[in-house]
Amino acid sequence: MMTIKDVNPNLIQAQYAVRGKITNRAQELEDKGRKIIYCNIGNPQALKQKPVTFIRQVLSLLEYPELMDMPEAKKIYPADVISRAKLIMQKNPNGTGAYTMSSGIAFIREAIAEFIKNRDGIPTDKNKIILTDGASKGVQAALTLILKGGNDGVMIPIPQYPLYSATLALYGAKQIGYFLDESNSWQLNEKILNDSIEDSKKKGINPVAIAVINPGNPTGAVLSKDNMEMIIRFAKKNNLSLLADEVYQENVYLDGIKFISFAKVMHDMNEKEVTLFSFHSVSKGFLGECGHRGGYFEIRNMAEEVFEQLIKLQSLGLCSNVDGQIVTYLMVAPPKPGEESYELYKKERDGIMNELKAKSRILGEGLNEINGMECEVPHGAMYAFVKFELPHKHGVDVSKMSVDERYAYDSKRDFEYCLALLEETGICVVPGSGFGQLPGTMHFRTTILPPRADISSLVEQMKKFHTNYVKNMLVE
Amino acid sequence: MMTIKDVNPNLIQAQYAVRGKITNRAQELEDKGRKIIYCNIGNPQALKQKPVTFIRQVLSLLEYPELMDMPEAKKIYPADVISRAKLIMQKNPNGTGAYTMSSGIAFIREAIAEFIKNRDGIPTDKNKIILTDGASKGVQAALTLILKGGNDGVMIPIPQYPLYSATLALYGAKQIGYFLDESNSWQLNEKILNDSIEDSKKKGINPVAIAVINPGNPTGAVLSKDNMEMIIRFAKKNNLSLLADEVYQENVYLDGIKFISFAKVMHDMNEKEVTLFSFHSVSKGFLGECGHRGGYFEIRNMAEEVFEQLIKLQSLGLCSNVDGQIVTYLMVAPPKPGEESYELYKKERDGIMNELKAKSRILGEGLNEINGMECEVPHGAMYAFVKFELPHKHGVDVSKMSVDERYAYDSKRDFEYCLALLEETGICVVPGSGFGQLPGTMHFRTTILPPRADISSLVEQMKKFHTNYVKNMLVE
Repeated sequence: MMTIKDVNPNLIQAQYAVRGKITNRAQELEDKGRKIIYCNIGNPQALKQKPVTFIRQVLSLLEYPELMDMPEAKKIYPADVISRAKLIMQKNPNGTGAYTMSSGIAFIREAIAEFIKNRDGIPTDKNKIILTDGASKGVQAALTLILKGGNDGVMIPIPQYPLYSATLALYGAKQIGYFLDESNSWQLNEKILNDSIEDSKKKGINPVAIAVINPGNPTGAVLSKDNMEMIIRFAKKNNLSLLADEVYQENVYLDGIKFISFAKVMHDMNEKEVTLFSFHSVSKGFLGECGHRGGYFEIRNMAEEVFEQLIKLQSLGLCSNVDGQIVTYLMVAPPKPGEESYELYKKERDGIMNELKAKSRILGEGLNEINGMECEVPHGAMYAFVKFELPHKHGVDVSKMSVDERYAYDSKRDFEYCLALLEETGICVVPGSGFGQLPGTMHFRTTILPPRADISSLVEQMKKFHTNYVKNMLVE
Repeated sequence: MMTIKDVNPNLIQAQYAVRGKITNRAQELEDKGRKIIYCNIGNPQALKQKPVTFIRQVLSLLEYPELMDMPEAKKIYPADVISRAKLIMQKNPNGTGAYTMSSGIAFIREAIAEFIKNRDGIPTDKNKIILTDGASKGVQAALTLILKGGNDGVMIPIPQYPLYSATLALYGAKQIGYFLDESNSWQLNEKILNDSIEDSKKKGINPVAIAVINPGNPTGAVLSKDNMEMIIRFAKKNNLSLLADEVYQENVYLDGIKFISFAKVMHDMNEKEVTLFSFHSVSKGFLGECGHRGGYFEIRNMAEEVFEQLIKLQSLGLCSNVDGQIVTYLMVAPPKPGEESYELYKKERDGIMNELKAKSRILGEGLNEINGMECEVPHGAMYAFVKFELPHKHGVDVSKMSVDERYAYDSKRDFEYCLALLEETGICVVPGSGFGQLPGTMHFRTTILPPRADISSLVEQMKKFHTNYVKNMLVE
């Protein structure tokens, strides 16, 4: 019988805090009847965000194509929904139940190319787009392609979304962390990048790529064009591929700030050397269709024979799920002004975006006012990454700790803190140690997703919890 | 820019013939307007098999839940479809758009446990079931768990479904091939297993598991209980985990033969040591819902701490797509006698199964009659694995070839043969070298899936092609 010594040691090493011990404990409590507020994961429809009607109407017809021609259909569905579903059936006559090409249905890849072209004003090749079961699978495919084993390493932000660290551990590759600059709205810092890559080389690591999450998870940062140009120059100088995680591209809240894609910046720099993988998803934005596991990645500056290897890799899993492909299509080709569904679509889209924007402000500002907590009001994405402070217990002298000891000490403390928050309030957040943080600091990540009406009480509960937690520490 | 020397060498090694060069060529020809008959892949709905109505009706309501309560719904859907959709919404209130638990929705795992219990008459634990995006992803998860790197190897059948060889290559693990016994309806042979594992150990390989595909792909074999008991004893003696690929469990055509699960045989042997992974899918059987990427795997005899590692692995991809999970649920919990949908469901199920059964016989018998071709009429699954012979060109003396040279020689010939078949007739099959075969033999795999009306003409075209191909060789 298999025991733990028979298990892939790389898997044992991999850590994924977004669904770790604290979430398991939350599930246990919920099974016992406790009310849990899941702020650990960007899962909007689990927190009462309604699906966009147009998307679901089209899907419902495609699942049951006979319905399109029934007289009742006209009473249920707007005309453009029916004609759109018919168009999809015509372009993909095998329907939702057949395997597609490994890279995804051709007309959907065309629509994605058109979307990128319109978003960025740059030429785009539909044959360099691959549909995936969510963006995570795309990231894992890219890493599978580029990691040759041994000492290959990938630069990842600290803090980062732990898919990256976990996948690198799983694939036996090295992670080269680079700190984001909390004092500069979590932008990347050229000196830190240079120091970090030089340090990794001294350790015998072979850096092959840099991963950048923009808008940032967990930081909520939106990168400036200057910052992105610096990153591209850095990647070029060091012969790194660039993994651009752009799944939160629609989630920008701060007035005057907008999302710019790496594809666009590279195009404007006339950069033709840096291999770019850019990832997108139907799970975020205002769709929040996490359960449909849809997404794509687009590739630039890659030799054809390399791309063929990527397609072969995708073919092993045959193809991504067709409904997810269709949701991706509808994301990039929504109803147009003048079409019957457009007004409702616009209303729902703007409604969700306005809520997210308001909630990011209420939550960010509210948490900032708590004594001992500090956070940037999120510029984008779906999270606040909150720095907090705790007193040290009597007899603990942090000045005598090494950097590693200090990191371990704080990691234990932020974990215990988040666990206590869950036990006491039912609020489930993820400790900063699950994402990485500067030694000597502690954070937690919370989503901004609970319904707006609940956010103020959430902040209130956190304040009360934090105050008591600190008070009890001082008493001990 | 990434060039081929920057690519993961394990990926370059991996081969997946079911979607390889011949399929790409078929796609090219189709794009130019040629009619292609895709017999390369078990993709029933691409070959005009209709989806089962009940499945799609329930899905269409779940995608657009408002529809359930509209007055029109009663005119469109049978009452049990509506009540089933409502039940699913009640059990999974977040709907199809939210991430689920990493292992899948709890009530669906319960229904699967109930299905296994009823199928086999054995106790089943819902907490040892994990839902996946099709069975391939389950196989890859299991292999990720059990391969510790270095010299770990997995025993796989020859011929095999190339997911296994490709994934082992990708993971840098060793494949330990064991030949299936073509002269004994492709059953496993104890002496061959023993010789094969001993030989691998001599090469320094550490065998950790044996993969068995039952019903067989590409062979169409259905294993006898005796054969399965032998395999379990063999696994136990050699401390191997057992990967039981049982995705074709519904696809059994020969009268008097039936599918028995490895879980059942292990239970009847009171075997509690061998770790078992058994895989199932919505893509095969009579549903043929390939595009929905649904499936599950069930685990027996595994330490809890090992299982936790598997759950962690699944959590990296968050969860399998929800529609696929729901199709899996409907597969294991179909309409019951007395429910309004039952009669249509039964009619569709029996219709599809009868067609498959008839087609397996017509195709198998037809190909058998072609001079120079030989195959077993498939007992199960969706394929015929056809042995064929070709004359040797003037001056070629196969008796002087080493085993490896002979294998390479035949691999080149079966590939060229299948490519010529495609170019000449539009029929797309996969060369035997893509699955593995005894040196000195050549095969191709064809599905039995084209519409029944087309099968006779398919056989006729193959006969004509083969005759001409041989004639031309003799002329050269």
